[in-house]
Amino acid sequence: MAVAEIIAIGSELLTPDKTDTNSLWLTEQLNAIGIEVRLKTIVGDDGARLEESVRDALRRSDVVITTGGLGPTADDITREYTAKAMGRELVYHAEIEDHLRERFRAWGRAMPEINKRQAFVIDGAEVLPNPNGSAVGMLSETAGKMLIVLPGPPRENRTMFTDHVLPRLGPIAGEFYVRRRLLRVIGGESAVDEVAAPIYSKYKNVETSILFNRSEVEIHVSAKADSEAEAQAVADQVADELIEALGDNVFAANGETMEEVVGTLLRDRSETLALAESCTGGLIGGRITEVPGSSDYFLEGYITYSNEAKIRTLGVPAHIIATEGAVSEECAEAMARGARDRTGSTHAISVTGIAGPGGGSDEKAVGTVFIGYAGPEKVRTIKVVLPGDRYLIRWRASQAALDLLRRHLLREVHRKS
Amino acid sequence: MAVAEIIAIGSELLTPDKTDTNSLWLTEQLNAIGIEVRLKTIVGDDGARLEESVRDALRRSDVVITTGGLGPTADDITREYTAKAMGRELVYHAEIEDHLRERFRAWGRAMPEINKRQAFVIDGAEVLPNPNGSAVGMLSETAGKMLIVLPGPPRENRTMFTDHVLPRLGPIAGEFYVRRRLLRVIGGESAVDEVAAPIYSKYKNVETSILFNRSEVEIHVSAKADSEAEAQAVADQVADELIEALGDNVFAANGETMEEVVGTLLRDRSETLALAESCTGGLIGGRITEVPGSSDYFLEGYITYSNEAKIRTLGVPAHIIATEGAVSEECAEAMARGARDRTGSTHAISVTGIAGPGGGSDEKAVGTVFIGYAGPEKVRTIKVVLPGDRYLIRWRASQAALDLLRRHLLREVHRKS
Repeated sequence: MAVAEIIAIGSELLTPDKTDTNSLWLTEQLNAIGIEVRLKTIVGDDGARLEESVRDALRRSDVVITTGGLGPTADDITREYTAKAMGRELVYHAEIEDHLRERFRAWGRAMPEINKRQAFVIDGAEVLPNPNGSAVGMLSETAGKMLIVLPGPPRENRTMFTDHVLPRLGPIAGEFYVRRRLLRVIGGESAVDEVAAPIYSKYKNVETSILFNRSEVEIHVSAKADSEAEAQAVADQVADELIEALGDNVFAANGETMEEVVGTLLRDRSETLALAESCTGGLIGGRITEVPGSSDYFLEGYITYSNEAKIRTLGVPAHIIATEGAVSEECAEAMARGARDRTGSTHAISVTGIAGPGGGSDEKAVGTVFIGYAGPEKVRTIKVVLPGDRYLIRWRASQAALDLLRRHLLREVHRKS
Repeated sequence: MAVAEIIAIGSELLTPDKTDTNSLWLTEQLNAIGIEVRLKTIVGDDGARLEESVRDALRRSDVVITTGGLGPTADDITREYTAKAMGRELVYHAEIEDHLRERFRAWGRAMPEINKRQAFVIDGAEVLPNPNGSAVGMLSETAGKMLIVLPGPPRENRTMFTDHVLPRLGPIAGEFYVRRRLLRVIGGESAVDEVAAPIYSKYKNVETSILFNRSEVEIHVSAKADSEAEAQAVADQVADELIEALGDNVFAANGETMEEVVGTLLRDRSETLALAESCTGGLIGGRITEVPGSSDYFLEGYITYSNEAKIRTLGVPAHIIATEGAVSEECAEAMARGARDRTGSTHAISVTGIAGPGGGSDEKAVGTVFIGYAGPEKVRTIKVVLPGDRYLIRWRASQAALDLLRRHLLREVHRKS
């Protein structure tokens, strides 16, 4: 079986300001054609270390893919040191510079002189075109090993890999296929695993990871088989059994986000949604509208952050805020009713809570959140006390609100049928 | 100088569903005390490979830190294979199990039996307590090398490192100090670098990376010196010169987010903000309210996604939408005016555009976005055409809107002085 290694290049990838996502995507692409990724390495903008990493990787593995470090600036050292690791020179390509100048001209700009660096290529390497950026890629072969040099920006990296690298990997692609399923589940990690482990551990050639991610448990199922169809069938079989056992707590059967799931339920029913957000401040609206076509079911949201806004815009009675406070069951209910009445939507959800770090009290601690639901048949409020910092409390509040809506939508479908 | 390696453990870290952020944070912590991180490795849930990685790392480096794989489930293999790499047994600690049972009891739950796995520790290792989770960490020494085993969840990982690992690293900490500055700049990568390179390349012992990140250029300045004070002084000197040269395009001098910068400007002036969002759908509100204390200046936002919502809530004249369309300069202006009038805020910004992938036309392509500003002295609208997919267009629209507000706030300050 062919083995690949990925080397991500750039000092910034060793700092908290930036994470490497390309190698994750590349690994999935390689796995899908039966090429295993054994190891990934991250190297800073350090020529000697980069050269050594590429050389070691070429010794150990059949395919070595580097990402990043192909920009026009002085810290972009990949061209120089991958060439050294291959024992070759860099060669200037006039047609690359011409093409670059043409690109800049089309944007109405002159090419900065430093972009000339991007016209140098490892001697003998195949040049991989980049429709989405200025850096070309390279594919260079030596002694049965393949070095593939890709740019860092994900859009450039992925298009180049898909269009120009994948077709070249066919001859060394593996004899097995991997297919994955990703379930997302509301619940705790240990509790979900106690239900899931007896199922997934029955299967050979299936790897399962259970992970807690901000507001949900993820079950990653990965099935390996001799054919695509068989790998898919096994992954589906495991996923089906897990869904049967975990019930409605599984909100996504194929890795969908909560906002995609809720959007599909609303669209299928030709129903509409309005939002009234306080402590989440637009986060739920932002999530709902991240889904293309969400204007089919999403009408309007109100970010009523101040007390005045809650009274003025949603008609929350001033006496509720005066006596119960803005973070209260009564206020959440009035917000949800107000949003639904005002927009004429089928459903409305509301969120009001204390995201912290300030604003908590003995009676209402940081993390206390009230979520309201108003629909054609009922109005309901729940209280949750969410752990975490401000970011996590807000994210978890948005997830709890969308999950409450999801469960109402599912229940109504069941009742009608 | 002491050298460290980091090994991140977990199959999920090799997939696109998860990225490793711990090692980035750890690298910064280690660098700050003069311990260099040469290499980072990511290994799946594969015992043999993990054992080999730990063994190799212990051979090459003074300190090896592993993160993750300490959970209670069967795929959590770090305890077993780090012990093997050290040539030691795992030993059961009754007091760890007792403590775990107590934790679960405090939450009103019984400890699942699988959590018992978490009571096993490498023979002879120091146990590192975990106030934020169920997995203890370990610190094990052999032949002058130090193996540190930390849990994966960032909150657990970081607290344990800070409280229990950092004090132990003092004796091997290096003779130099590193201090960083991160500037965020509106502009293109090449254009920013043409201004910046003549400045940063004058300095020895300063590493500078220039990166384009979604909607801005980041300049990472990293200065190395014999004392903390000197490293800080050099980093500050380089940053000051860059800010001088790049002017108002530098929106953050210390890595702040755009929403933090805008929030600080509003708070300093005791002024308030309202939002009217269409294609960004709450994203701007979500960003503004992510900042603690944003209720001091943020009053209310309107996510007017449908045409009816724009007319009903913001008073956009129906004839504007009929003749110019909802994505128009006139509509953006009416939205900003409406939000400001309705809330009585000092400033309001509005966004209406086509985020795609559908909805574009020859006249108004996907990516066309109008941004409105209404303030005490003027009302202005700008049109931008943003590249990218739906996610990027929305993000960049939110950034352009906040930057427009920032520039108005700065200009008014200048005029008053």
